[in-house]
Amino acid sequence: MLNVIILGYGNIGVNITNALHTCDTVTVNQIVNRNTINPNYTIDSIPTTTNLSEIQEADVYIIAVPDDAIEDFSALLPFNDKLVVHTSGSVSMQTLDGKNKKGVFYPLQTFTKNKLADFTNIPICIEAEDSTDLNTLQTLAGAISNSVTVISSEKRKTVHLAAVFVNNFVNHLYTISEAIMQEQNLDFDLLKPLIAETAEKIQHLAPGDVQTGPAKRNDLKTIENHLHLLKDSPYKKVYEHMTEAIKKHYL
Amino acid sequence: MLNVIILGYGNIGVNITNALHTCDTVTVNQIVNRNTINPNYTIDSIPTTTNLSEIQEADVYIIAVPDDAIEDFSALLPFNDKLVVHTSGSVSMQTLDGKNKKGVFYPLQTFTKNKLADFTNIPICIEAEDSTDLNTLQTLAGAISNSVTVISSEKRKTVHLAAVFVNNFVNHLYTISEAIMQEQNLDFDLLKPLIAETAEKIQHLAPGDVQTGPAKRNDLKTIENHLHLLKDSPYKKVYEHMTEAIKKHYL
Repeated sequence: MLNVIILGYGNIGVNITNALHTCDTVTVNQIVNRNTINPNYTIDSIPTTTNLSEIQEADVYIIAVPDDAIEDFSALLPFNDKLVVHTSGSVSMQTLDGKNKKGVFYPLQTFTKNKLADFTNIPICIEAEDSTDLNTLQTLAGAISNSVTVISSEKRKTVHLAAVFVNNFVNHLYTISEAIMQEQNLDFDLLKPLIAETAEKIQHLAPGDVQTGPAKRNDLKTIENHLHLLKDSPYKKVYEHMTEAIKKHYL
Repeated sequence: MLNVIILGYGNIGVNITNALHTCDTVTVNQIVNRNTINPNYTIDSIPTTTNLSEIQEADVYIIAVPDDAIEDFSALLPFNDKLVVHTSGSVSMQTLDGKNKKGVFYPLQTFTKNKLADFTNIPICIEAEDSTDLNTLQTLAGAISNSVTVISSEKRKTVHLAAVFVNNFVNHLYTISEAIMQEQNLDFDLLKPLIAETAEKIQHLAPGDVQTGPAKRNDLKTIENHLHLLKDSPYKKVYEHMTEAIKKHYL
């Protein structure tokens, strides 16, 4: 049985806690959070505290605080020589304070508190300083996910960058699309089956093989019509830049 | 019983034909295509021809040829006063030749021949010149889809523009992401659960409410690290433009 303590209880903390809590081979001993936790998100059998001096013993301490707080927070921990991991895609393992053993436990997914994720197929990228700790993280990650990958801090930065394109940037394109529809009193719901299918398609096919549209086929007439529709829109530039990028890629 | 003839048998033609063929209230009388149809895509009970002079009688003629061929093709049809519709998002209804009654039957989805779509939830945008023809198209679309919407040519252009953002542009971001991963010998499959969840999330939540990432929170350090990773990459510009667009939208 692996004992873990969760430090930080935002979107990632809540989701990791719930996933680990439901598996037989892991016990979540305690949740530590700066503020008192909203009772909607607590789990009856897991004690919580806001006070770092009350922190208990565990095999693995999982830091799930904002990226820019990881370094300082890890230095505040009132113990030494324990395995302390963070959950960030973009922060180097070496950012963690040197008084403890360092590791990374990065679940590659977008989380919200209000919709608990099923971790079975969520890739978990792990990293540690030695093989003993790596084995521990392998066991921990393997308890909740079928997709565990050892990835260095350097490569993890690339994974996180690629994730920004398919998550943050894609979501902004959804936002723009919704705004364009709403401006003409059109229902954004009309586009949801297309959004779902676009994401579904590349689960099996290479995205480069299924690219379509006016930019891909250099259909200047349609592009011109679109730019005309967008003439006073703040989204015209995104249209122009994405069209240019697609043209360059294929022509 | 509505009788239809399909003119053009590419991705859209194949998918519409299969959807209409499987419903009790519609008969597909004939498929007309410029070239002989690959036997993999034919349906035994539907006759095919490559010769426009062999075209049969029907209630609705559905043109599913490339956008820029619709006008000329509709002028070639060897009959008058029939209901002739096209299936394009971006082409005006008035582009169709005036010797027949005009209409539009635009299924808002991305199609491939090799993966036949279930039309039940695919929005079909229809348009016609009078209420009789509109009723016919309503019946036809309603036979395969639960989501039929009357939309003018003008508004349909906006729908198509918005679709370009969530389909063509999004797919190109997937392509870029795959290239970034492959360049570091990382498996693009790692990102597929994130891609699926990003699309899933906005089926229920407004995309603007779930935007995250370094651009949204103006995390200049992470943005700088990403630009450093992309320093010699052809995708750096897309990163910069999308980051700029998100910052402008939220700050």
